[in-house]
Amino acid sequence: MAANNEVGVEDVTETNGTTGDGNRGDALIINCLPLTDAERRAFAAAAPGVRQEFVGNPIERGTMIWKAHVPAELKAKATAVIGNIPPSDCRDYPRLAWLQTWSAGVDKYVAPGVLADGVTVTNATGAYGQTVGEHLFAMMWALMRNLPDYARQQGERRWHDLGRALSPAGATVLVIGTGDIGSHFARLVKAVGAHTVGIRRDAAKPADGIDEMHGFDELDALLPEADVVALAVPASPDTTHLIDARRFSLLKSTAVLLNAGRGNAIDPIALERALAEDQLHGVGLDVTEPEPLPADSPLWDEPHCLITPHVAGGNHLEATERRIIDIALENVRRYAAGEPFVNVRR
Amino acid sequence: MAANNEVGVEDVTETNGTTGDGNRGDALIINCLPLTDAERRAFAAAAPGVRQEFVGNPIERGTMIWKAHVPAELKAKATAVIGNIPPSDCRDYPRLAWLQTWSAGVDKYVAPGVLADGVTVTNATGAYGQTVGEHLFAMMWALMRNLPDYARQQGERRWHDLGRALSPAGATVLVIGTGDIGSHFARLVKAVGAHTVGIRRDAAKPADGIDEMHGFDELDALLPEADVVALAVPASPDTTHLIDARRFSLLKSTAVLLNAGRGNAIDPIALERALAEDQLHGVGLDVTEPEPLPADSPLWDEPHCLITPHVAGGNHLEATERRIIDIALENVRRYAAGEPFVNVRR
Repeated sequence: MAANNEVGVEDVTETNGTTGDGNRGDALIINCLPLTDAERRAFAAAAPGVRQEFVGNPIERGTMIWKAHVPAELKAKATAVIGNIPPSDCRDYPRLAWLQTWSAGVDKYVAPGVLADGVTVTNATGAYGQTVGEHLFAMMWALMRNLPDYARQQGERRWHDLGRALSPAGATVLVIGTGDIGSHFARLVKAVGAHTVGIRRDAAKPADGIDEMHGFDELDALLPEADVVALAVPASPDTTHLIDARRFSLLKSTAVLLNAGRGNAIDPIALERALAEDQLHGVGLDVTEPEPLPADSPLWDEPHCLITPHVAGGNHLEATERRIIDIALENVRRYAAGEPFVNVRR
Repeated sequence: MAANNEVGVEDVTETNGTTGDGNRGDALIINCLPLTDAERRAFAAAAPGVRQEFVGNPIERGTMIWKAHVPAELKAKATAVIGNIPPSDCRDYPRLAWLQTWSAGVDKYVAPGVLADGVTVTNATGAYGQTVGEHLFAMMWALMRNLPDYARQQGERRWHDLGRALSPAGATVLVIGTGDIGSHFARLVKAVGAHTVGIRRDAAKPADGIDEMHGFDELDALLPEADVVALAVPASPDTTHLIDARRFSLLKSTAVLLNAGRGNAIDPIALERALAEDQLHGVGLDVTEPEPLPADSPLWDEPHCLITPHVAGGNHLEATERRIIDIALENVRRYAAGEPFVNVRR
């Protein structure tokens, strides 16, 4: 389950996309989710008359990697698959009309030549906003209260006051990328007293939790005002090294920078220099460039850099699993009823 | 500034206490606060006709220890002091009628024989709820997202997923001690989706942020339901080793325990055993028994124990300094006007 820290919020009632060919008589849904018996019954009840094979292993519930193992004889007959099957296997599904992923990212499936023309792809966008947003929030609080430094001191059995702490109460929090994740994070910081400023491509489109929205062209003007800068942008040429040496120089000396979007949104060389020169209070990284962070990176030793190994998303929260299942269940119901899918990606 | 993590919330409009003898003609207030020039002018304006000497050093602003140095000739004339003078010096103030501390704790001043009969003591209760409440909140989030463990891995340059994280959304948070600090913490966890249960001596008295209040007699019944248990109790015989081996056994295996009240509220031997036996998810301690935590304590090495060296309170937040000054300023105004003080402790 790589690439979960995607951005984008999806209204479950949206109605773009189709349910495929509408012929359900020979439909076969291969469901790779690690479902309990009760959940399997709920899927069966949602699609009366549609054959469903449940191949997921409930023992994977609560584990960070779910595997989609589909027996060869089912691949030949499947019209729909729920699960992140290996992209290179897609050619083994000649009748496939619909793929529902359990990830938010679908890059590997929508790449040219992976799926036949006409195969609908739906994803699990909306399932990951809470876990990634909360991870950003936890990193912010930990840095504000100097907890990474205190954890290091704890390793040395050292009882020593490190001085001033920071608070988000009354602070200005700049959220770059205001999809599912950025919006969830913004709601959290707003709930504890921060003023939230969002940056998104279409500044005219509001987002829940964001007090004021701006376009990327205003980034340089907003950085010097920010007490916290949170990156939740997807990978794109526009966001590569978005925070570079020049923009580090625009930050407050007390700023906290967080990244749980894509590692390459921050120039790692500029980051190393900014930390070495104490240009900001602290940095929390759940994603890095490259990833995993190489063992010789100086970032590992930076006292004001908190590093977590791409664990903000995925199945780290039980609530995420429940939301993935809810999204898939809703689309199975729609598939059987011939209604348009939610979360259509192509 | 020891002993700031006190509990107790004070309505600034309360009117118990007195302003001393009411004779302001020969009054002299010695103000030890590290004030800016503008703040000194505000104090002067608040008490027209009352002599005030400002002996604080503004360079101490932002430092964790404020010192109250009063020249000998002023001690003899002072009728009021703002600042935590050494308790043993109190006998050097023959005319003292009012002491305003910058701490919440006043144990050392109200102890028998320290101050003459009739000296009024007011404190800075209300100034510390935010900083201690936010520190508890930060420790909770850090433990829920396994950040202390990730910080240790970072020291080993290790990129490794530690699995499941926890969330306060939908969780039950038990707050033991619902004064200024417990109430502030409760408001924070409630704002991010938790259900808050309070325990206080007088269960009939509500507290801001607490959804349901109970008495200490219900503690054993409430512990098994709690996802988070936060201790913000003052030192008292009732709360010594409040969380003991039997009560550790009542906790959920996923529970997070936090203490920023008094170190002795948790039995340290029972805590060591509970952690060694994985009886709960994690523990965040800003106070310990004894304090500092001895270098040979096994708690330092416990991967699920986050230790900070009594840094939740004090002057760690700039906002605390501003609130201390606001409380003192209000009482100076009342002193000059002959009105009853706020925050009276004796």
